[in-house]
Amino acid sequence: MKLGMIGLGKMGYNLVLNLLRHQHEVVAYDVNEQAVKKAADNGAIPASTLEDMVASLQTPRIIWVMVPAGDPLESTITAITPLLSPGDIVIDGGNSHYKNSVKLAARLSQHGIHFFDVGTSGGVDGAEHGACFMVGGDEAIFRNIEPIFKDIAVTNGYLYAGKAGSGHFLKMVHNGIEYGMMQSIAEGFEILDKSDFEFNYEQVAKVWSNGSVIRSWLMELTEQAFAKDPKLENIRGIMHSSGEGKWTVETALDLQASAPVIALSLFMRYRSLDQDAFHGKVVAALRNEFGGHAVVTADNP
Amino acid sequence: MKLGMIGLGKMGYNLVLNLLRHQHEVVAYDVNEQAVKKAADNGAIPASTLEDMVASLQTPRIIWVMVPAGDPLESTITAITPLLSPGDIVIDGGNSHYKNSVKLAARLSQHGIHFFDVGTSGGVDGAEHGACFMVGGDEAIFRNIEPIFKDIAVTNGYLYAGKAGSGHFLKMVHNGIEYGMMQSIAEGFEILDKSDFEFNYEQVAKVWSNGSVIRSWLMELTEQAFAKDPKLENIRGIMHSSGEGKWTVETALDLQASAPVIALSLFMRYRSLDQDAFHGKVVAALRNEFGGHAVVTADNP
Repeated sequence: MKLGMIGLGKMGYNLVLNLLRHQHEVVAYDVNEQAVKKAADNGAIPASTLEDMVASLQTPRIIWVMVPAGDPLESTITAITPLLSPGDIVIDGGNSHYKNSVKLAARLSQHGIHFFDVGTSGGVDGAEHGACFMVGGDEAIFRNIEPIFKDIAVTNGYLYAGKAGSGHFLKMVHNGIEYGMMQSIAEGFEILDKSDFEFNYEQVAKVWSNGSVIRSWLMELTEQAFAKDPKLENIRGIMHSSGEGKWTVETALDLQASAPVIALSLFMRYRSLDQDAFHGKVVAALRNEFGGHAVVTADNP
Repeated sequence: MKLGMIGLGKMGYNLVLNLLRHQHEVVAYDVNEQAVKKAADNGAIPASTLEDMVASLQTPRIIWVMVPAGDPLESTITAITPLLSPGDIVIDGGNSHYKNSVKLAARLSQHGIHFFDVGTSGGVDGAEHGACFMVGGDEAIFRNIEPIFKDIAVTNGYLYAGKAGSGHFLKMVHNGIEYGMMQSIAEGFEILDKSDFEFNYEQVAKVWSNGSVIRSWLMELTEQAFAKDPKLENIRGIMHSSGEGKWTVETALDLQASAPVIALSLFMRYRSLDQDAFHGKVVAALRNEFGGHAVVTADNP
């Protein structure tokens, strides 16, 4: 099939390579001209403007938007909407909030444009060599673009999830689970590291990746990380997050769904951002107040 | 090689089948005569008593004990120790506490007997078709029995972990990680279930098993469970535990290792055992005391 790709960052660029390898024609656009040139060097049709891209596609057009959620997505949608025709298809493959996707689908449907919210998992390598896609939107229209997903996903790696928003909802919850799984694995190694056994963490992650109940891609990545740095001495334990874990916990709160481990995994990430924690000062101060227990004083000048 | 297997329950019996398939000779013993007969029907050499088993093996004997941890293991070790000779090898493949394994290794070494604590993961199917083994004990002696593990493990599925106790320590922490991963996955589906999307959970678990970051054996098992019962309507959410999660948390406490998600996963299991929770009554009572908030009264006769 022929489709346009807006956004040639790590994920978008690798999706283009994946699409081209599967004999799809891709019209590639990015605000960064170098990125467009690189895609063209690999076989994509370059577009120098959104108008150029739209003109290069026959109706019903298929346009995959792979830009960061929030303002970049909003400005892209705003710019492209007047250029499109009824029947055209817009795919948001980024990590947008599912509520935004529900609104966007309604907004675009007023123009007769079909919108799909597509949660994408599998990392940069997955984007190029086969990822996992969760798709929300109109089912009948989805069947028209299904061959694309069949090609660029791993086997059984795409799902028509339901109405608009369901794709990004699934991706959000997927990431919440990911937070909990990562924290669980990490705490296990924390216990190993505090024990008086002398484990080789790379070998431990390797044996746990083969035949055990906890074998998983994350455990394989754990093995890879320890292979590069046996005790992770070159990494500080600061755990950033990019928002989907927070959305998962906010959604759990809205739905009154009990998800304490996912919530705690998120809070542990926030804790890791503080060199010192204010709650730690409060607890230390209270122990001192009621029991005279010693506190560690701050090194103030 | 030739070895004895004591304990022909689900795990022991399947290990026997696995060993036989790899051309090892197995002398099989169990207190249950039927289990011995079944093993013999599949090619094992039956032993009617421990004495019989020991007499069927040449020194240095290799005896794999696959009985429940605690009293059954203790009585087996007590019974077999006087029958063995210096240089013989005893393997505990069960889920014993690592501290017990450290003690047992010291006790048997007084008789010149080499002890190995072997954590086994992969379930009943893994025992038969290839499992994951974490082995603690004397390294030089381990190299003599390594061919057994190489045969019955999946590729890269065994590890010489270190001194006595390290095998069961690793298995314990493995199970702690398992608790956290399972609770994380489960909370994700809790959120899906409370949402107003109509997800097919089997399909969701399937797509998450293919190409996603959270792909794992546990997610594949989740898919299997939903395939049998799409909404798990025939299962109550009572989460039993068999002790290794508790040991992991106790160990984390002893080591002052922060493992809050594993601990919380264990507490959530305990919570699930109560039809009603006393802490719930206390919170409801306090809300009533300070704010006059309504309580749900108990249906007392």
